[in-house]
Amino acid sequence: MPSLPTAALSSSSSLPLFPPSSYSSPRKTQSRFCLSFALPRFTNPTHPFRRPMTCSSIPIEKETVISDRPYSFLRETDGLDDESVRSRFQRMIMDVQDSVCGALEALDGAGNFQEDAWTRPSGGGGISRVLQDGRVFEKAGVNISVVYGVMPPEAYRAAKAAVTDQNPGPVPFFAAGISSVLHPKNPFAPTLHFNYRYFETDAPKDSPGAPRQWWFGGGTDLTPSYIFEEDVRHFHSIQKRACDKFDPSFYPRFKKWCDDYFHIKHRDERRGLGGIFFDDLNDYDQEMLLSFATECANSVVPAYVPIVEKRKDTPFNGRHKAWQQLRRGRYVEFNLVYDRGTTFGLKTGGRIESILVSLPLTARWEYDHKPEEGSEEWKLLDACMNPKEWI
Amino acid sequence: MPSLPTAALSSSSSLPLFPPSSYSSPRKTQSRFCLSFALPRFTNPTHPFRRPMTCSSIPIEKETVISDRPYSFLRETDGLDDESVRSRFQRMIMDVQDSVCGALEALDGAGNFQEDAWTRPSGGGGISRVLQDGRVFEKAGVNISVVYGVMPPEAYRAAKAAVTDQNPGPVPFFAAGISSVLHPKNPFAPTLHFNYRYFETDAPKDSPGAPRQWWFGGGTDLTPSYIFEEDVRHFHSIQKRACDKFDPSFYPRFKKWCDDYFHIKHRDERRGLGGIFFDDLNDYDQEMLLSFATECANSVVPAYVPIVEKRKDTPFNGRHKAWQQLRRGRYVEFNLVYDRGTTFGLKTGGRIESILVSLPLTARWEYDHKPEEGSEEWKLLDACMNPKEWI
Repeated sequence: MPSLPTAALSSSSSLPLFPPSSYSSPRKTQSRFCLSFALPRFTNPTHPFRRPMTCSSIPIEKETVISDRPYSFLRETDGLDDESVRSRFQRMIMDVQDSVCGALEALDGAGNFQEDAWTRPSGGGGISRVLQDGRVFEKAGVNISVVYGVMPPEAYRAAKAAVTDQNPGPVPFFAAGISSVLHPKNPFAPTLHFNYRYFETDAPKDSPGAPRQWWFGGGTDLTPSYIFEEDVRHFHSIQKRACDKFDPSFYPRFKKWCDDYFHIKHRDERRGLGGIFFDDLNDYDQEMLLSFATECANSVVPAYVPIVEKRKDTPFNGRHKAWQQLRRGRYVEFNLVYDRGTTFGLKTGGRIESILVSLPLTARWEYDHKPEEGSEEWKLLDACMNPKEWI
Repeated sequence: MPSLPTAALSSSSSLPLFPPSSYSSPRKTQSRFCLSFALPRFTNPTHPFRRPMTCSSIPIEKETVISDRPYSFLRETDGLDDESVRSRFQRMIMDVQDSVCGALEALDGAGNFQEDAWTRPSGGGGISRVLQDGRVFEKAGVNISVVYGVMPPEAYRAAKAAVTDQNPGPVPFFAAGISSVLHPKNPFAPTLHFNYRYFETDAPKDSPGAPRQWWFGGGTDLTPSYIFEEDVRHFHSIQKRACDKFDPSFYPRFKKWCDDYFHIKHRDERRGLGGIFFDDLNDYDQEMLLSFATECANSVVPAYVPIVEKRKDTPFNGRHKAWQQLRRGRYVEFNLVYDRGTTFGLKTGGRIESILVSLPLTARWEYDHKPEEGSEEWKLLDACMNPKEWI
């Protein structure tokens, strides 16, 4: 198995959780994992970080399992400055994890989240929560992580050409994020994914005056098996409302970005009915983007919970369930074949149960299945193949 | 979507079926598909074809759906020479498709194979057969294909350094193969995969005297959810018997190759309990290898059918079924993440239903599932993590 130092350098979208150290088998170790996120997309041809980075000489420290969640995962030197963006972002994702898990447990009425928490000797850590086989939810994961890592100097040089001549050393970075996938049981209740992340570099170790880099990324998207237009409109309206508070260009831009990103190319279908998605966002005021990410994360519960509340007890038959299972198969295809966080995590030897907690409990593949034209199943497929404007 | 000329250049292992022409959506066309196989593995660092080849300027012809299977898919000029290796290999895979499907229908007792057949204007074609939701089998696919294609001159040059100076043109090739994945319903009846293929180049178009290349590839492997040692020993014994008729080194060498190939790296598990696997085989007498591939393909029924016959009606409970479904999840992971034929097919825009017919009807992913030490489930997992010598 390769070592894992690059794990935390992956840009994530689905539920990309990677362990902080290398090991040969998930069942042979006590490894706990961390969210990995926040570095820019490798595939953006115009982005200076577009090449996959390797830094096998810079391993991340091994984690320590802890029994109680701490007040903060930040290093003490960071923690003293409670007004820093990293500190406020961490507080935000911890609060959102609490509020989302609380809302989901109340909605489920039976299942409880199982929690795993860990820290690392030099700072950072994470909290993973999974609710499986509840009354309403088949599988729900809500995870946060804070990572102190080091990126190879080539990455920083590529981003900041002016510094390249000074041959800087490895560049320390900070990353924090929340990531979640929620799969309900009822085929009329949609799956939800959301992920918000913040990334910051320090100055290179031997270039103390060099400028810091920072980015925000994330999104919230809905994956129903059946279309209830009022549900999809409600969901997109909440996304638009969050966007419009900051910039009228955000919703149309991030809605399209979402449709483009969650594209199952080999089927020419989107995974679901979209929402918003953005990455590498740093060309706005940093405070404004922190508020924007906070607004988006706080919009998850009002955007999603009322929909599940409305559909969780809708009667269904075997045909509905089979169609939901086929769409779950598509979810698996997207996550295993295309999702950058997942594929990167698998390649770099991440803690597999954490990376793949985004997969549904059950999925189905029928040979050459074609919904009857005009049927409810056909309408969903059509909307996945031809993204619509919902509001 | 990219055009598909390279589809037929993929080395396959699972059920790699690709359409012969490019299209943007599986549901928007009448495309039928072809098996794709036979070129050497790209990842073998010592192999001259190790780099993925692109030949987007050399498209494969569009196929024509036909109602009845023809006697031969070979070009007339080939067909006149019934003693050629390509002709005899085609006859062999047609016969094996018949005999395997016949044996499976008899075993199932209820399901029938649905057949799709097609040809291409300048020769080549294929027959796909799928049995879904039978009495014994959840999903069973048995497919053959014959391809006349053209590989980029770089590939041929790389293989034959002596020819490089002459700057040869595109290199015509012939490929034929049979590929199959069989998923039974009963959790005590194992999944089977087999695939045998033959590949031949013509001389480059402007270097008529240059030597031909040829290869054989293939294998048969068993993926149970529960171990019945007598079943696994029976299966491996039949593989060894087929191998030993030709070379005593074959079974140990191809058994290990199989264990190495079907490795789910992110779990450090094999997909199943192995069998035999070989690729790029040309360093033996060609007639001997044709006989060997024939012997292996003819060994599928005696190696597999008695096992399913014995286990198809074994009583099982929900725990057995759930474990089978978890192992089916592993099958999905291997095929979508690692299998060269599948991943190459997805990237090059193959007919998705054909590529993914290898996926099980249903699969399952539980968070952090760990079988109890010493249990029957644990024993299977242990054997997948630590490949054993069964005979």
